[in-house]
Amino acid sequence: MSEIIATYLVHDRKGNLEKKAEGIALGLTIGSWTDLPELEKEQLKKHKGTVITAAELEEDRDASTYLGGKHTKGLIKIAYPAVNFSPDLPAILTTVFGKLSLDGEVKLVDLEFSDSLAKHFPGPKFGIDGIREKINVYNRPLLMSIFKGVIGKDLGYLEEQLYDQLAGGMDLVKDDEILFENPMTPFFDRVKRGRQIINLLKEETGKNSLYAVNLTGRTSELRDKARLAAEAGATALLFNVHAYGLDVLQSLAEDDEVPVPIMAHPAVSGAFAASEFYGFSYSLILGKLTRLAGADFSLFPSPYGSVALKRKEALGIAEECTVSSVYKKVFPVPSAGIHPGLVPVIMKDFGNDSIINAGGGIHGHPNGAKGGAAAFRSAVDAVLEGRTLEEKARSDEHLEKALKLWGQYEAAK
Amino acid sequence: MSEIIATYLVHDRKGNLEKKAEGIALGLTIGSWTDLPELEKEQLKKHKGTVITAAELEEDRDASTYLGGKHTKGLIKIAYPAVNFSPDLPAILTTVFGKLSLDGEVKLVDLEFSDSLAKHFPGPKFGIDGIREKINVYNRPLLMSIFKGVIGKDLGYLEEQLYDQLAGGMDLVKDDEILFENPMTPFFDRVKRGRQIINLLKEETGKNSLYAVNLTGRTSELRDKARLAAEAGATALLFNVHAYGLDVLQSLAEDDEVPVPIMAHPAVSGAFAASEFYGFSYSLILGKLTRLAGADFSLFPSPYGSVALKRKEALGIAEECTVSSVYKKVFPVPSAGIHPGLVPVIMKDFGNDSIINAGGGIHGHPNGAKGGAAAFRSAVDAVLEGRTLEEKARSDEHLEKALKLWGQYEAAK
Ligand SMILES: [Mg+2]
Ligand SMILES: [Mg+2]
Repeated sequence: MSEIIATYLVHDRKGNLEKKAEGIALGLTIGSWTDLPELEKEQLKKHKGTVITAAELEEDRDASTYLGGKHTKGLIKIAYPAVNFSPDLPAILTTVFGKLSLDGEVKLVDLEFSDSLAKHFPGPKFGIDGIREKINVYNRPLLMSIFKGVIGKDLGYLEEQLYDQLAGGMDLVKDDEILFENPMTPFFDRVKRGRQIINLLKEETGKNSLYAVNLTGRTSELRDKARLAAEAGATALLFNVHAYGLDVLQSLAEDDEVPVPIMAHPAVSGAFAASEFYGFSYSLILGKLTRLAGADFSLFPSPYGSVALKRKEALGIAEECTVSSVYKKVFPVPSAGIHPGLVPVIMKDFGNDSIINAGGGIHGHPNGAKGGAAAFRSAVDAVLEGRTLEEKARSDEHLEKALKLWGQYEAAK
Repeated sequence: MSEIIATYLVHDRKGNLEKKAEGIALGLTIGSWTDLPELEKEQLKKHKGTVITAAELEEDRDASTYLGGKHTKGLIKIAYPAVNFSPDLPAILTTVFGKLSLDGEVKLVDLEFSDSLAKHFPGPKFGIDGIREKINVYNRPLLMSIFKGVIGKDLGYLEEQLYDQLAGGMDLVKDDEILFENPMTPFFDRVKRGRQIINLLKEETGKNSLYAVNLTGRTSELRDKARLAAEAGATALLFNVHAYGLDVLQSLAEDDEVPVPIMAHPAVSGAFAASEFYGFSYSLILGKLTRLAGADFSLFPSPYGSVALKRKEALGIAEECTVSSVYKKVFPVPSAGIHPGLVPVIMKDFGNDSIINAGGGIHGHPNGAKGGAAAFRSAVDAVLEGRTLEEKARSDEHLEKALKLWGQYEAAK
């Protein structure tokens, strides 16, 4: 049967999880069951939510203390028949977490789509393999960097930064997510000039690269803007999907006239994933649903910096991006606080099929962005060669300076 | 200067709120300031975020205990120049709460739009006055009810319920938010038959009423669907705005070809408003921003039922819906757990300019939905006449039965 199975983490004051689960399963489908006449039961059976499990977990005393008294912690799994909703994310989210999101300590931690439901969603258009083909880089993590302080700066400043980062060896560069349509660096100028710089570098070095331009504006304009961007030569689009809605990402991913990889930015997502009691799990919202809706890259805070996720949460997102499924794989992009000395740890945590994304760790390099990029490339090479960073740094000035400045981490924090 | 001022509630481990505030103001605008050359300072000045206040509040020991050590609680206000973003909600939310939403215990509790920024947003098309005109009811709260268990039921069942609720004296009826496009009660059939029933009742009783049909489907289809619904006779649209995005609501509200009131449902909003540490305040998301984006009604959990907001939160939403502003007023609709015995309290808490919204409190009435509706009307009359419900119940069988079944509340819980 076509259905969706939702898993909820609950902290419940009443302590009868079976009863709670049954209440949710009915409340979000047909409303009542026990007292219905047999004929009506027969009619409504296929619409009824079904409790799969209601499993008590060990009490979390800190949580109970905070919530003001003993709470039963547990995982509840409920199957909702797909016949109840249209196969789109707004309908699904409203069904499984609409009014329930307002009803006490309930966090939606996973959704499992039956195959017949999953086929309504596109997944990534390119995915990890498609992106690797575009830039012709295999068997190592990709390297990405972000611009430094571009608000209020002109196109020339942006161009110079873009050139330096790519020339230094970065595979991808992304816009700042807070760079919107503006007279100094208009979107289509960024698209066109970005493409020219990428083409120039390809001539100079033979290497292809991508520049993700920030797709912004009113929801109703996005599809046309994305199509025009593709026509104008965009190589990738950055998208603040959680400021819009996953369904909007899906429309872009489904559009044949937008043959451009899409990079999902996690902006605003902390608002509905940071709490242990409420909202969504990070692995669901930045992993599974971002993949299903069609992003080719998913950015999320790395576990290493000051704006950080817990290591388990970050790894959970990456797992959802890359686990075998009916959809292509999404590049996980752990971001923030990344410098060359962290490369061995990042590669151990996230593997080859990930993207090392640097900001301050490239622009703050004593030899500038080019030197920073070179240091990252060198650190990746060291890991692939089975050498330590110190060893590699002896023959690489850029890496040496980076290690001196930022230090080195051999183990996960 | 055109700007937006954001107010954040923070719980900060480091305890230097001034420094934290300055970090936010710079991090979400130009990145750095102190070390810039004078010329660059001059150029970037108009883009720089400005700390308005960083005020320490009394320590919340429960919060500190939960967060694992002393945390400084405080309110930080920062002004962001409008020149940095396009005047749309996705850009604004990304600017003021994009990566910040992922950065520790920070909750966005308010946004203040300068007049020149506010004029980019429509506000409600009808508002409280426009809705009152439509149904020709003034000087009392409106009465609304919701269908009971409609999933899996056919159009005839829906029609009968709609007729009974309106004939009993309800001013409005709304679809269940989990009723999507389906073969048994297709959207356009609901629109057309709903209108016929409303017209019939107008002939029979002279009274006009509204039926909010649930507008659902893919984001890209909504505007056309709403236009067609208006053409087909829709009197109101229910919209799960938080499963889509506020910008989508705005597009509907701005559309002249959708001359129909829009009822914003709070489905999914608990995911990003329930925590005291993260996300948005309810008054911002279900009040101020829902109004600015153009809803005519805002539903939210009442403080009286089992799915409940704190009284202060519910009143905060209603305040944002009705406080004097450049936009028309939004009808606050406290929902869930409402029965006739609560009417005096609801009217005391939310005043005349609100909507009393019943579900079980009408369908569970011993005399059926018609009896339930009559009991509500009678309870409202009692309050307006300055009489107690008991007094009124002596001459009203429906109210008497309601009070017997559900009891009566004279004071706020
Ligand atoms: Mg950034
Ligand atoms: Mg409902």
